[in-house]
Amino acid sequence: MGINKQDKVIKIAVDAMGGDYGPPETVKGAVMAAREYGVEVILVGEKEAIDRELSACDTEGITIRIVEATQKIEDGEEPAFAVMRKPNSSVSLSTRLVKEGEADAVISAGSTGAMMVAAARYLGTLPGIDRPVAGGPFLGLAPNTVVLDLGANVGCQPYQMVDLAVVGVVYARTFLGIENPTVGLLNIGSEEGKGNEQVKQAFSLLKESGLNFIGNVEGMDIPFGRANVIVCDGFIGNILVKYSEGLGRTIRKWISSELANQLPEDRIEEIGSSIYKLLSPAEVMGGGPLWGVNGIAAIAHGSSRASQIAGTFRQVITAIETDLVGNLLNELAKVQAKREQKNR
Amino acid sequence: MGINKQDKVIKIAVDAMGGDYGPPETVKGAVMAAREYGVEVILVGEKEAIDRELSACDTEGITIRIVEATQKIEDGEEPAFAVMRKPNSSVSLSTRLVKEGEADAVISAGSTGAMMVAAARYLGTLPGIDRPVAGGPFLGLAPNTVVLDLGANVGCQPYQMVDLAVVGVVYARTFLGIENPTVGLLNIGSEEGKGNEQVKQAFSLLKESGLNFIGNVEGMDIPFGRANVIVCDGFIGNILVKYSEGLGRTIRKWISSELANQLPEDRIEEIGSSIYKLLSPAEVMGGGPLWGVNGIAAIAHGSSRASQIAGTFRQVITAIETDLVGNLLNELAKVQAKREQKNR
Repeated sequence: MGINKQDKVIKIAVDAMGGDYGPPETVKGAVMAAREYGVEVILVGEKEAIDRELSACDTEGITIRIVEATQKIEDGEEPAFAVMRKPNSSVSLSTRLVKEGEADAVISAGSTGAMMVAAARYLGTLPGIDRPVAGGPFLGLAPNTVVLDLGANVGCQPYQMVDLAVVGVVYARTFLGIENPTVGLLNIGSEEGKGNEQVKQAFSLLKESGLNFIGNVEGMDIPFGRANVIVCDGFIGNILVKYSEGLGRTIRKWISSELANQLPEDRIEEIGSSIYKLLSPAEVMGGGPLWGVNGIAAIAHGSSRASQIAGTFRQVITAIETDLVGNLLNELAKVQAKREQKNR
Repeated sequence: MGINKQDKVIKIAVDAMGGDYGPPETVKGAVMAAREYGVEVILVGEKEAIDRELSACDTEGITIRIVEATQKIEDGEEPAFAVMRKPNSSVSLSTRLVKEGEADAVISAGSTGAMMVAAARYLGTLPGIDRPVAGGPFLGLAPNTVVLDLGANVGCQPYQMVDLAVVGVVYARTFLGIENPTVGLLNIGSEEGKGNEQVKQAFSLLKESGLNFIGNVEGMDIPFGRANVIVCDGFIGNILVKYSEGLGRTIRKWISSELANQLPEDRIEEIGSSIYKLLSPAEVMGGGPLWGVNGIAAIAHGSSRASQIAGTFRQVITAIETDLVGNLLNELAKVQAKREQKNR
């Protein structure tokens, strides 16, 4: 896409109807971001609802455009199917603006599943990536460790695990600022030759990939953050995400009752909330671009308030300015060329 | 084996050389158990070392026998190979006493790997079970939930997952006292048809198994204890065990520094230790019979003191008195007969 911030203003489409609070927060957040970052915002959704919110904001000197979404995803509709059926719903339409070059990126606080389907359908995934992945640092305990895939890519071919590693590396570089991220393969032992056929073959491919591959890592190595990028099949990643989420909730409950009457209530609440954030991937991830998509499509937490919507803009702008998609394509092409050379 | 406690005294072989503390604790523990439970004990190991410890104990009125082990597993030997090479080492020999009908069960606080190999080599595994499994409740958070396999059986055939479920059910009944344990299949969604080929096929087989199968469970359901028996491939189970262990350690460290100077030091230590026990499978499991073995071979924690050695006797005696192995064989035969009937 080759956006050059010197030449033209960055344009970001926002699914104004998405999120638990809808236009009152998405519109306010978009206005905040437009002012703070000097970007142009395209608000996509019901014109009336957006106008109502805009009229309460100070929009002087910023550029905001409305694109009307003529279809609406109703409560109870399966989001993924609704996206396909309704190309003029706010999430579909805002994503299509990216495809058509009208916007440089799209942000939605709506259903993650809907955004993933919209991104896959309208932007497509990068070569070797089956489905877009929502990712990022996985545990508050290990802020410099990214785990993928977390459930979108189940039953990976070994070569796909290398592609996932590339995606993780480019993200760790872009968003965590790690120059040469280490890559580990999640396995049941540290020695080469351990595990099932999938990981044995992936191990060989990763060794020859040119990535900074440090070998197998074990379950224990995730909370200790022993690699920056940890690759696993989506079947395992999904179980780990949900397991961690469950632990976050149960341990929070346990510690709160354990500390009752021993510390002030707000301090207990603070500790419970911290422990939940340390353990819960849902808390740590959330805002940020989908991974492996041929374009920049970002999700914000469903419960985002205006300031969190604006925060997601920051990540999206970084992705645009560093040419995230171009970098990903380059890096994927490199490992894929190596693979073909070897197969020849 | 049909041991009848009315007719004859239960005989238990003890690997006297096993465990971090060796004979000083194993011998004392065995003497305690012999007195408390009225069982006969066969101490297997170096005669001199055992005699030395026995001479310091009151052995009046209890029956203790020594069987000399003429080989020794040295520090640094790979335990699994050492067991094969040294049939007269204490762990091998004490297990062989069970095989030969000289003892009704064996207990070792030595290497778990060595005990697993000795059990597999000398007692064999039950039909459908590839390797013995060390199991039990998995998380302190969910004391009535057993997860298996935890790493011994990697790359299970779908029918093997049914056999693992049977093992879990019989154990939950025997050791947790749950009449009709619920069985869940660990998967990435709750609906039938989710997941990879392995779990899709295992789902169908479990549905027809006659077990109390409640369908798929997700990662979140483990800490919430939503099934009594949760079945997964050993590849995933192993990653979950080690992941939990890592979380137990890191969260313990975090909470200790978080509470520093806010609560008395011993109270902080207590909370840290509890949180570790809630999260760490190594703490929760440990003492108890290996699963799926054709005989009763129990492991005690490596760090066991005399009282913990004696505690493991209690579990072993329950296993003998309830005819654990006979029950397992019966239940396995039932699901296997159903399977054959269907395949005919």
